[in-house]
Amino acid sequence: MNISNKVLGRLTRYRALLTEYFPKEKTHIFSHELAAMMGLSASQIRRDLMCLGYYGVPRYGYEISELVKYINEILDASKLHHVAIVGAGNLGRALMTFLESRRATLKIVAAFDEDPSKSNRMINGVPCHSMDAAEEILRREDIRIAILCVPGSEAQRVTDRLVRAGVKGIMNFAPVPIRIPVGVALEEIDVTSALERVAFFTNNRANAPKERRHADR
Amino acid sequence: MNISNKVLGRLTRYRALLTEYFPKEKTHIFSHELAAMMGLSASQIRRDLMCLGYYGVPRYGYEISELVKYINEILDASKLHHVAIVGAGNLGRALMTFLESRRATLKIVAAFDEDPSKSNRMINGVPCHSMDAAEEILRREDIRIAILCVPGSEAQRVTDRLVRAGVKGIMNFAPVPIRIPVGVALEEIDVTSALERVAFFTNNRANAPKERRHADR
Repeated sequence: MNISNKVLGRLTRYRALLTEYFPKEKTHIFSHELAAMMGLSASQIRRDLMCLGYYGVPRYGYEISELVKYINEILDASKLHHVAIVGAGNLGRALMTFLESRRATLKIVAAFDEDPSKSNRMINGVPCHSMDAAEEILRREDIRIAILCVPGSEAQRVTDRLVRAGVKGIMNFAPVPIRIPVGVALEEIDVTSALERVAFFTNNRANAPKERRHADR
Repeated sequence: MNISNKVLGRLTRYRALLTEYFPKEKTHIFSHELAAMMGLSASQIRRDLMCLGYYGVPRYGYEISELVKYINEILDASKLHHVAIVGAGNLGRALMTFLESRRATLKIVAAFDEDPSKSNRMINGVPCHSMDAAEEILRREDIRIAILCVPGSEAQRVTDRLVRAGVKGIMNFAPVPIRIPVGVALEEIDVTSALERVAFFTNNRANAPKERRHADR
């Protein structure tokens, strides 16, 4: 299915809202309700959902459970992905616990760290290995996705190694940009930079971007 | 200073690279080197840095320490910001430790949680209070920035309360979008959604966005 990163980002956010926000009694939602919650226009919502082949019923709106099912199908949510966390520091360890309960289809099956005191043991329920074993474990566990939580100075070197070992998707939390070959998917999340931007605009309020939304990116 | 969110995002990333990536012996950098590391064009780098009023020397490039000083001035890095973490679950607790060592000017001075077992004690070196005390503590500690790590179902209600209590900048880690009034700065970081996008493109590699960079957003 051909789908842009922007639409995809919105679909995952619609699903999060629909599954986590509403009381169980609510069965239907109108595009304008979803629009108001997302900070988007109702026509944007309708266009996105039409891409899914889902139209809803004008009088009652979209049936929430059915809409979630359509989004799940598009996002291939029934397929299990094995994920590794690389770097078992504070952030890496927190993500093990945080992501464990988020999506049943995204499973953290291994962690890696260069610090011998952190490897060859379980951390937060995840087996943590030495970086020396990365290639072997990635292959054995069929891991195609890695979450990078290493220091900035290590990020590119570790990335190159992961890519050589067959990793096809990387979520980068290291505070520096990384380069990846074409064909590898990348999401970069720079927590410090985001906090610095908030701090800047808190000082310079006239310039604060208005109505800016994660989902609009 | 009038500066767009995009330029600001790039400046924080340049600084992270310049301060965290290079060996201490390296004193100068050319725009094309920085460009290659950031996945941007050299002319983009030069334009951004000219905005700072910093030009470098053609023969030697930019002096790294001076460039960092210019960026610090723009980002008002000498000003101390008091920050609160709202929601002391796994992610909130990890961010206390992770952010503590990142920037001296962004100081986590308080945390809040509705769970009585998490409040009225220190967690990871941060005093954690009951949500009932939020308004009083936010005022007393001069906290204008909050990091939201509450469940999706709580996010909007807690946001409204923080905004009423004078918070002017929010970094939202809750998995749902939040609405804020004009004049409040917002960054939304949806870790699960980002991981879902990576997983999607890992399955559908032909559609993976090429050369997409955090700093380009």
